Amino acid sequence: MGRATDRRTVLRIDTAGQGTVERRDTLAAEEPLEIRVGPAGPAPRRPLAVTMRTPGDDLDLAIGFLLTEGVIRQAGDVVTAQLCAGAETPNTYNVVDVVLAGHVPPPDTDPARNFYTTSSCGVCGKASIDAIRTRSQFDVAGDPVGVDARVLAALPDRLRAAQRVFERTGGLHAAGLFTPSGELITLREDVGRHNAVDKLIGWATREQRLPLRGHVLLVSGRTSFELTQKAWMAGLPVIAAVSAPSTLAADLAAEAGMTLVGFLRGETMNVYTGHHRIKS
Amino acid sequence: MGRATDRRTVLRIDTAGQGTVERRDTLAAEEPLEIRVGPAGPAPRRPLAVTMRTPGDDLDLAIGFLLTEGVIRQAGDVVTAQLCAGAETPNTYNVVDVVLAGHVPPPDTDPARNFYTTSSCGVCGKASIDAIRTRSQFDVAGDPVGVDARVLAALPDRLRAAQRVFERTGGLHAAGLFTPSGELITLREDVGRHNAVDKLIGWATREQRLPLRGHVLLVSGRTSFELTQKAWMAGLPVIAAVSAPSTLAADLAAEAGMTLVGFLRGETMNVYTGHHRIKS
Repeated sequence: MGRATDRRTVLRIDTAGQGTVERRDTLAAEEPLEIRVGPAGPAPRRPLAVTMRTPGDDLDLAIGFLLTEGVIRQAGDVVTAQLCAGAETPNTYNVVDVVLAGHVPPPDTDPARNFYTTSSCGVCGKASIDAIRTRSQFDVAGDPVGVDARVLAALPDRLRAAQRVFERTGGLHAAGLFTPSGELITLREDVGRHNAVDKLIGWATREQRLPLRGHVLLVSGRTSFELTQKAWMAGLPVIAAVSAPSTLAADLAAEAGMTLVGFLRGETMNVYTGHHRIKS
Repeated sequence: MGRATDRRTVLRIDTAGQGTVERRDTLAAEEPLEIRVGPAGPAPRRPLAVTMRTPGDDLDLAIGFLLTEGVIRQAGDVVTAQLCAGAETPNTYNVVDVVLAGHVPPPDTDPARNFYTTSSCGVCGKASIDAIRTRSQFDVAGDPVGVDARVLAALPDRLRAAQRVFERTGGLHAAGLFTPSGELITLREDVGRHNAVDKLIGWATREQRLPLRGHVLLVSGRTSFELTQKAWMAGLPVIAAVSAPSTLAADLAAEAGMTLVGFLRGETMNVYTGHHRIKS
């Protein structure tokens, strides 16, 4: 199986006069993962997507991707999910084969239609939001959870402290799942922030924890439309980020009735939507 | 036309006792852009891709995307490119219609095949690199340009100073094109770093500046496989980034004979590949 990091020889230059040294440096690994889906049986499953990801937690990633894209709704929709052999020697294990239960409608593996369904008609942000609203199985607007602002302010440090790979590479995004009292339940890391969130949600799906009612999702970077969409699909009422949200992230959070927090740094934060859940 | 930013009401919380204030805040805009391509004539052009982007420089984005994806090779491959009406009222101008010249092979608008061609077979990183190597029309390995390390160290501040939107939103990635002596030629901003690079390369394509021999590309974040691929497709010999590269970015840069610099901060930097171009 691929590793989460790999080492390369690097020339370290210090222009202030410390000179130049050659050394070994640790980089965050990036490799493609192909996700194949289909019913049980001898016929090969069909490729649904390829994502560039950091190896590790690949089954979580595949299951999370299928959940946030609306292909599956629960753990019971998957019969088996396994890393399988590609055509390579040595085997790179960059393919996940997912057997769907008989009751699951076969996903549209034509990425043309699939892409246009999930990422909008391409015409306006409002249409994108409309499309997502009809797809999420969970109502997050009614989630009564409340979170103390001081608890929120402490989360980024806890996330960073728990990141195993970032420390060595500086190259990974993280997504952490927290209780309203600030306890870290689990975290996932990836070169792609959407993958980190899918890995987290895939873990929760496999653990039969959906919907993630009453929980807080913290992401290490910015919040986009895509991340907000994934949070909604998992039933998360609160999404917090260290950096800025986009307009469409804020609009989608408002539509969903989610609480969206940004610029969570030090002792301050911006609350863009769902202020009623934050106690300050 | 969509705007690069929009304003939202935000609750600003300071848990250190400064209290809570409601204020207007500026967010980086994110909206889908659909890129349609095809030959001249009454038949409608076909959708090739939808990307979530910050409105602005949309023609550059579309042309850059087509160039870095290998659909076109030069400005002369495009007859017209225009923002066109979607089905919405009021018109959101989130569609770019590109008429390709008669000599351009029609792109495969089946995103299934297209996706698998451009993003790899899904099996291993090596296969991805092989696929790209056969697609770039430019040899960057032989580019004799040299860059002084002290010049490189000064670029991030110049990029940041020239970013118009980031300052107000904190939410945009930037890509800047520099001469080897550190002069900023132009920059582009976007919520997606791949879009910022495509906008820059699209501008260069329309200005008939390809290949970007002897130039330096600086990106505000990390370098992934995808960004390195785009730089190679434009003939750029040097790519520098404020943050970390991934393993596949470094491997692709090595394969291309590009110079890849990361962690360009303050007076120090890491040179991952193509050390011979950096004078320290």
